[in-house]
Amino acid sequence: MSDFKISGVVPPVVVPELEDHSLDVASFEKLINKMITAGVDGLFFLGSSGEVVFSTDAVREQVIREAVRIVDHRVPVLVGIIDTETERVLEHGRQAERLGADAVVATAPFYALGGLTEMAEHFRILARELSLPVFAYNIPVCVHSKIPWKLALELGKEGVLAGVKDSSGDDVNFRYLCQENEKAGHPMSLLTGHEIVVDGAYLSGADGSVPGLANVDPDGYVRMWKAFQAGDWTAVKAEQDKLNELSHIFDVTSGLQGYAGGVGSFKTALWLMGIFSTNQMPRPVKAMTGENVEKIRAVLTASGLL
Amino acid sequence: MSDFKISGVVPPVVVPELEDHSLDVASFEKLINKMITAGVDGLFFLGSSGEVVFSTDAVREQVIREAVRIVDHRVPVLVGIIDTETERVLEHGRQAERLGADAVVATAPFYALGGLTEMAEHFRILARELSLPVFAYNIPVCVHSKIPWKLALELGKEGVLAGVKDSSGDDVNFRYLCQENEKAGHPMSLLTGHEIVVDGAYLSGADGSVPGLANVDPDGYVRMWKAFQAGDWTAVKAEQDKLNELSHIFDVTSGLQGYAGGVGSFKTALWLMGIFSTNQMPRPVKAMTGENVEKIRAVLTASGLL
Amino acid sequence: MSDFKISGVVPPVVVPELEDHSLDVASFEKLINKMITAGVDGLFFLGSSGEVVFSTDAVREQVIREAVRIVDHRVPVLVGIIDTETERVLEHGRQAERLGADAVVATAPFYALGGLTEMAEHFRILARELSLPVFAYNIPVCVHSKIPWKLALELGKEGVLAGVKDSSGDDVNFRYLCQENEKAGHPMSLLTGHEIVVDGAYLSGADGSVPGLANVDPDGYVRMWKAFQAGDWTAVKAEQDKLNELSHIFDVTSGLQGYAGGVGSFKTALWLMGIFSTNQMPRPVKAMTGENVEKIRAVLTASGLL
Amino acid sequence: MSDFKISGVVPPVVVPELEDHSLDVASFEKLINKMITAGVDGLFFLGSSGEVVFSTDAVREQVIREAVRIVDHRVPVLVGIIDTETERVLEHGRQAERLGADAVVATAPFYALGGLTEMAEHFRILARELSLPVFAYNIPVCVHSKIPWKLALELGKEGVLAGVKDSSGDDVNFRYLCQENEKAGHPMSLLTGHEIVVDGAYLSGADGSVPGLANVDPDGYVRMWKAFQAGDWTAVKAEQDKLNELSHIFDVTSGLQGYAGGVGSFKTALWLMGIFSTNQMPRPVKAMTGENVEKIRAVLTASGLL
Repeated sequence: MSDFKISGVVPPVVVPELEDHSLDVASFEKLINKMITAGVDGLFFLGSSGEVVFSTDAVREQVIREAVRIVDHRVPVLVGIIDTETERVLEHGRQAERLGADAVVATAPFYALGGLTEMAEHFRILARELSLPVFAYNIPVCVHSKIPWKLALELGKEGVLAGVKDSSGDDVNFRYLCQENEKAGHPMSLLTGHEIVVDGAYLSGADGSVPGLANVDPDGYVRMWKAFQAGDWTAVKAEQDKLNELSHIFDVTSGLQGYAGGVGSFKTALWLMGIFSTNQMPRPVKAMTGENVEKIRAVLTASGLL
Repeated sequence: MSDFKISGVVPPVVVPELEDHSLDVASFEKLINKMITAGVDGLFFLGSSGEVVFSTDAVREQVIREAVRIVDHRVPVLVGIIDTETERVLEHGRQAERLGADAVVATAPFYALGGLTEMAEHFRILARELSLPVFAYNIPVCVHSKIPWKLALELGKEGVLAGVKDSSGDDVNFRYLCQENEKAGHPMSLLTGHEIVVDGAYLSGADGSVPGLANVDPDGYVRMWKAFQAGDWTAVKAEQDKLNELSHIFDVTSGLQGYAGGVGSFKTALWLMGIFSTNQMPRPVKAMTGENVEKIRAVLTASGLL
Repeated sequence: MSDFKISGVVPPVVVPELEDHSLDVASFEKLINKMITAGVDGLFFLGSSGEVVFSTDAVREQVIREAVRIVDHRVPVLVGIIDTETERVLEHGRQAERLGADAVVATAPFYALGGLTEMAEHFRILARELSLPVFAYNIPVCVHSKIPWKLALELGKEGVLAGVKDSSGDDVNFRYLCQENEKAGHPMSLLTGHEIVVDGAYLSGADGSVPGLANVDPDGYVRMWKAFQAGDWTAVKAEQDKLNELSHIFDVTSGLQGYAGGVGSFKTALWLMGIFSTNQMPRPVKAMTGENVEKIRAVLTASGLL
Repeated sequence: MSDFKISGVVPPVVVPELEDHSLDVASFEKLINKMITAGVDGLFFLGSSGEVVFSTDAVREQVIREAVRIVDHRVPVLVGIIDTETERVLEHGRQAERLGADAVVATAPFYALGGLTEMAEHFRILARELSLPVFAYNIPVCVHSKIPWKLALELGKEGVLAGVKDSSGDDVNFRYLCQENEKAGHPMSLLTGHEIVVDGAYLSGADGSVPGLANVDPDGYVRMWKAFQAGDWTAVKAEQDKLNELSHIFDVTSGLQGYAGGVGSFKTALWLMGIFSTNQMPRPVKAMTGENVEKIRAVLTASGLL
């Protein structure tokens, strides 16, 4: 089994772009430092909200290189090696190894249709041919298949998976995974991808969380984690409630779908807060403008972040 | 509008692998030559059944290079430039240009969630920044969004799309597209990805077909096309019926899902027919064995191909 | 096997309502007589577009009673006995028997989750306990499961199913069903629920069609059927093309979803054409008003129906 | 706003059948009394797992009549009035009123396609025309549309909905609903349909739970509720963990899908425990036999219930 263990708050880092879509290194540094200062326990780069599928291999290289340089071993660096099928994912894995990542995060195969046989074989090959610990990224909304807890558990016991980052939105599957992982001696670190019901995931037995909204308010998620560590559930829920008010940056905008509205709201918030120099989005997605920006400003103001 | 027009039978070429998963160039050459000899009107490389999402950039390069060399201008070469989002697709497009493709085929963006705004912008960027004609590959089963005929038509009229390769399985959407494309002066070449109801697609107004099963029996699809050109619908249907008997290579096997069963049956048939040296599949998919191979052999025998 | 055979054009009859939502018997009579005069080969009452799931048992009784009275044996009367599970469907079947229907049409079970085992048992019970011929209504968009051709074929050979009304939108499944039904001695009458690609379904081997749009233009569908019987595919396609222009009554409206736009456009067209006294819809659906009505009027005018 | 408030454990009652599929009144009485004795706070009859869509109107009448008689005002009786569209649901609502139910539970419309407009109008009509408090049953897995929290909240504030029974499996939607309901003065009673993550739902702010598994172990769910009332989260989680071990009756069987496996496991457990006289299922579902029964026996034994 893997020796790599991680717990606590591990935000998936949003990637700032300049107007010409190139990496905005200065803003990236500000964001990373802000989150480390707030007390996060790790950082996850090139996740779904970290521009990964929009980035060429060269841009992925730059993002990892800068991330590793800026983080400078203050917290563990997890890197998403997301691509369609095994050989392509392996290439990203070797890139992450070469550049100094601490662990890699891979989804189930996507685009080509398959079943659990291919899913299991995929993770086994990754674990065998990469030297870094491998986390499974359970994200059916993007890859259109779900990793069942029974398979994840089997792969954890085998030593194939060091952990799971669960963005399945299936709290039953996650609960069983936590409970059975515990019974099996806790071979895996289990992180919830939730941001709105992180408190419930902690109650379910999660080792930590990967909340996108922590880009905007890392302090809130760190306070919630500390309250959880202290067993103070009233405070845990109160922090979650407060973060949920902030989370309305997701639903106050109109006319936007998917990434444009989700990651778009993070980038717009970070821009309004002075951390990003612009709210530029990767092509073909357009940056938010006009009324949508004003509505996000209003939520930030109400949440005391402006 | 694009000057590139294509019609007739344009098979998506299945890619042979050696036991070590490297490209089996000799078998590739045999298959390509067999189909050109049969009279196909074009070849589509690196489609969904052409190993595209399983292939690293280096392997894609090799496939295109060998394809262009072997085809040697006897028929047009279409190349799939399939990847998640715009910048990555553009890189594949430039690779295809550099290596001598005649046209490129791109899907809607996938993995990240979006809507029609992003879909339209994606194809507009591809058309603007690539010099080759761009075909839209409508394949919701893989990318989980469908290109509506109204958007495809708009992009065709704008000169963004040279055509559509329709694997949507939505014959209503395709029928409207054909009918409206005709009314607009036929700006696009419209190819059906069907193999089982190609006759119906021809009746709907398709300019041609991209049938995977033509790897196994190109002559049948060429005869069907010629019968259609001659207006002999009885013969068209009779050829389709016969090909459909052969198509049971898809459903006689058991225990296989998706690519393993679909492309696996093509590879196994081509191997049994002596065109491929093995039925090896790309990782993490396993090659068919045992009973499944025997069942495919029986279908081939019944169809007179063995 | 069933002795009941049907072929040709069998429209699913749209049901007119008065302002108070009660059955508008006079309009119903006008519509039915218009279609029989046009030469349709049967009529299907209480289908998905025939208000079936909106109607209480008492209203279903009235609809069947009036339908049987008005049709008066001029053409066969098929009746939808659509409900969630077996016992409830049986009750509707006995009602249809009692009131003089010629055949009944049942979907797969819905609401409760199940599999092919339950689907097969359901149809077997219906066939065993009802005296009328049973048609399977394949409509996954409403019941969220699809009847695979292999199961339909098995049930046809057993004598359980007299036929299939296919609204699956899956032309591959339908094509296999037609081809295998023929090879098995044609035990079932196979009707396509398409209205836009009926020509393709005829080419695939359909015995007939159940086009909702035939409520608005029965003559067009009858002409297409006669052209098909005469083997004149050019005329078949030309009729379909013309009907497809009329079918834009489905997509010229805005702000409406599902039944409100689909059946709503039929009712609005029939109202504008003077066949219905109003375009009233069943609760909770609202009748079309304003701009949407004008847009449908424009399509009808362009199609020469006003 | 509705004066009807409910909180605590409100099991959806599983309905026993005799071999001939008629209601097993004696077993029904045993089960109801066992749950009331255990301390449940209400009972929900004719829910998804209460045979509702399998039952004819006459059987529904019998179930409600016996339920009201047996419960005899010891706890509130909620009755599912589940059917496809408004007029049919209203009929069930009037039946429930006539027979003495305390509240009714209705899903969004299903089978016919629609949108939020129809969903809202549906619930408004139900509330206006029925005298009993109306709960919305959010169960997309059965009706294929989800009630968004914003709409539920709006209907709660209007006094249309007395509450929501949430079986959406979407803990984010439920969390927002709880939080916003609280901010709005708590107009609705919010019940989770979960059985595996009830603890998380309580932490999210649920007023109570409707756990199917409480048919098998009502004491466990009552203890969890009392621990929650006492603010003892360690005990809450411990009870949930224990119940989750019992819940493996869902996944130890094989070859069963949906209702056959889910409600089938409840009926088989209750039969093995001597509460039901058989594990008979409603047609077309088959009762569990052989190995599957033994596997459920083993789980019950391990959980100390045998």
